[in-house]
Amino acid sequence: MNILDIIEKKKIGNSLNKEEIDFFIKGYTDGSIADYQAAALIMAICINGMNEEEILNLTFAMTNSGDTIDFTNIANNIVDKHSTGGVGDKVTIILAPIISALGIPVAKMSGRGLGITGGTADKLASIPGYDLEIPIDEFKKNVKKIGISLISQSLNLAPADKKIYALRDSISCTDSIPLIASSIMSKKIAAGANSIVLDVTCGNGAFAKNLEEARELARIMKKIGELANKPTVCVLSSMEEPLGRFVGNNLEIKESVNFLNGIYEKDVKEVVFEIGSIMLKLAGYSDDLDYNKSKMQEVIDNGNALKKFKELVKMQKGDVTYIENPEKFEKANYILPIYADKDGFISKLDAMVIGKVSVLIGGGRLKKEDDIDYTVGIELCKKVADKVYKGELIANIYAKNEKDAVEYSNTVFKAFEISDYPIFYKSPIIEVI
Amino acid sequence: MNILDIIEKKKIGNSLNKEEIDFFIKGYTDGSIADYQAAALIMAICINGMNEEEILNLTFAMTNSGDTIDFTNIANNIVDKHSTGGVGDKVTIILAPIISALGIPVAKMSGRGLGITGGTADKLASIPGYDLEIPIDEFKKNVKKIGISLISQSLNLAPADKKIYALRDSISCTDSIPLIASSIMSKKIAAGANSIVLDVTCGNGAFAKNLEEARELARIMKKIGELANKPTVCVLSSMEEPLGRFVGNNLEIKESVNFLNGIYEKDVKEVVFEIGSIMLKLAGYSDDLDYNKSKMQEVIDNGNALKKFKELVKMQKGDVTYIENPEKFEKANYILPIYADKDGFISKLDAMVIGKVSVLIGGGRLKKEDDIDYTVGIELCKKVADKVYKGELIANIYAKNEKDAVEYSNTVFKAFEISDYPIFYKSPIIEVI
Repeated sequence: MNILDIIEKKKIGNSLNKEEIDFFIKGYTDGSIADYQAAALIMAICINGMNEEEILNLTFAMTNSGDTIDFTNIANNIVDKHSTGGVGDKVTIILAPIISALGIPVAKMSGRGLGITGGTADKLASIPGYDLEIPIDEFKKNVKKIGISLISQSLNLAPADKKIYALRDSISCTDSIPLIASSIMSKKIAAGANSIVLDVTCGNGAFAKNLEEARELARIMKKIGELANKPTVCVLSSMEEPLGRFVGNNLEIKESVNFLNGIYEKDVKEVVFEIGSIMLKLAGYSDDLDYNKSKMQEVIDNGNALKKFKELVKMQKGDVTYIENPEKFEKANYILPIYADKDGFISKLDAMVIGKVSVLIGGGRLKKEDDIDYTVGIELCKKVADKVYKGELIANIYAKNEKDAVEYSNTVFKAFEISDYPIFYKSPIIEVI
Repeated sequence: MNILDIIEKKKIGNSLNKEEIDFFIKGYTDGSIADYQAAALIMAICINGMNEEEILNLTFAMTNSGDTIDFTNIANNIVDKHSTGGVGDKVTIILAPIISALGIPVAKMSGRGLGITGGTADKLASIPGYDLEIPIDEFKKNVKKIGISLISQSLNLAPADKKIYALRDSISCTDSIPLIASSIMSKKIAAGANSIVLDVTCGNGAFAKNLEEARELARIMKKIGELANKPTVCVLSSMEEPLGRFVGNNLEIKESVNFLNGIYEKDVKEVVFEIGSIMLKLAGYSDDLDYNKSKMQEVIDNGNALKKFKELVKMQKGDVTYIENPEKFEKANYILPIYADKDGFISKLDAMVIGKVSVLIGGGRLKKEDDIDYTVGIELCKKVADKVYKGELIANIYAKNEKDAVEYSNTVFKAFEISDYPIFYKSPIIEVI
């Protein structure tokens, strides 16, 4: 077997068998297959696609390319949760302590952000002292002890995926369903949870620009999960406008703490409760989703979820006083307000544009090695369907300096569209697969 | 402009404009675009194709990526000749002195062989002393002085093509008409001739496996040539069986000297005379192809063509005594005869198989850095349509040692098919475009 024949086969549109996919993944991981050969094959996959069997084989080959975590002696009802990417997505940070407060263990590794999609790991890193890179034994010990741990992806999980992911980013091959599905699921399977809830985002701020693509991606990931003996549920959610009020790292931590204090944006709550109730169901808590939601509400109202979050932060060496008093978080140097120029109703708030501005003012990464400014971001004072008056505040840009804020003020302003006619609020939850 | 957008555009099947193609070629030549990005784009071109305008822009961008030769003060009727690759193709070596002997200057750079296609440069290098790497000034001076010079491609002609050609070879992207046409024509245009004759081979020993592909390749190259103001004629020739009696480096030089002495295989003569008569026409010698052929015959018969070849060899420091007495050429260590196992007519003689064996026994290169043994090769004692008796000699393998010869004897034997029914000789010339 040689890589040239494998590339040729996919180039002319034929399917690759398990041996060929294993050969590629092994060779690319150990460096015997060059980047340019992988690039050619990835491009051929991107254009000519892969059938279900190929996607399954690719996923399992990538899972087996590195470490896998075993929670056997910790718990057998660990539910993992993953989002295919969104702007302002702080769901994991809110959801993890709620689920854990209900007695279901949460052991989650989160990625750092790249491009317009912020990373949960970066948001947690904005809590002074919070250690995302504790050893895997400590990670497991924490889960056993307090029922929760959130860390970054420091283990060697699916290293083949890591290489392919970075390569795809540099050859315009990010938007391929077979490659996205296998990338996500190879890591989720390696991460050792017993079941998985996937938030498949859909809209201009997400990979899947339309419902059809989102459904196809969801269907394939569910299938992979089931074949890996990890029951998988996909929640399709809208990513036309950013989720919640804030986009930016410590801004989103503050918003998350507010949520656990009972103060929340409607859209965030709908996503958190929908995904959370399904996670509880998969963990064997109760099959009644409404009941699960009511229990989630209970641990918010009685303060147990917030307490669990503080426990988590403390256990990972973070400064809990920031959670007790979020006003302590460092503020951006310069805040520039953006005002509506007419009366009406917000009819559009472009998630892609807001996500891009957040990255460009320093809140995200264009390249892997970029540094992040935890204080910068955008506050969305009005969201889609909100009534607005001319001259009313619609957004605040939190920037490093006046220059940055002014440079992008018009872009943020234009991310909003105002209609003369009433627009009605639509739940971000589209459907559950 | 950035390479990611360019890759994306070709990935989704759109056409690239001149600026985008120039950006790619410039960036890949200067190293600012990585091999893996070029690999992804080349694969997308291979799968999604290129329209005529894109192919033209790609050709001219590659031509302009390096040196170009200017023969303005030497001659204005230089005709270049190129073959898209064949097994046993010694046409250039025979044709160049014939054309030059008729007063038309020949200034030609030839490639080294890679894969089953032998290289004219390697064949010439088998003449002891022959210097293929004379400086470009000397090359021009020789053309002015004796009307002929044949060298290897030592100049920095179309360096972008050189990089892309090597890359294509390592990512299974050799068989793309846009990439083949632009590769050949970028070098031909840079090489400075005033007009071009292309021998477009067709059959199992050539890139173009069928007539349709060969015609399409010919049509595009002709168009590129005309747009570059270099009248171009394509001769489509069959490459089902090897050309002539010998495949191998010094074996083919001996065969070429025999030809100039008036001893020739029918198929070689047909190709040499067809291409030669068109070269003479393009050079303004005469529009009457039959007249041109008769003049070619004249310079063979009166010895002027052989004399010109000896002049060439001498001028480039080669040992002319080898041309005067070809028996001086070093012989292979071991010669193994192959015999027919039944009576009949040769119905097939597989050019691809013979080409491969020639490479494997040391007559060609699998990798660029491989060394060549000039003495090895295969003698084809019978060709398609020849009558043959059981036990009669059909081929000789010229090998380094007995082991090599025996290892491939069965392969060479099987390259021949013998039919019970008569097979009629067919001219290798298919058509002229």
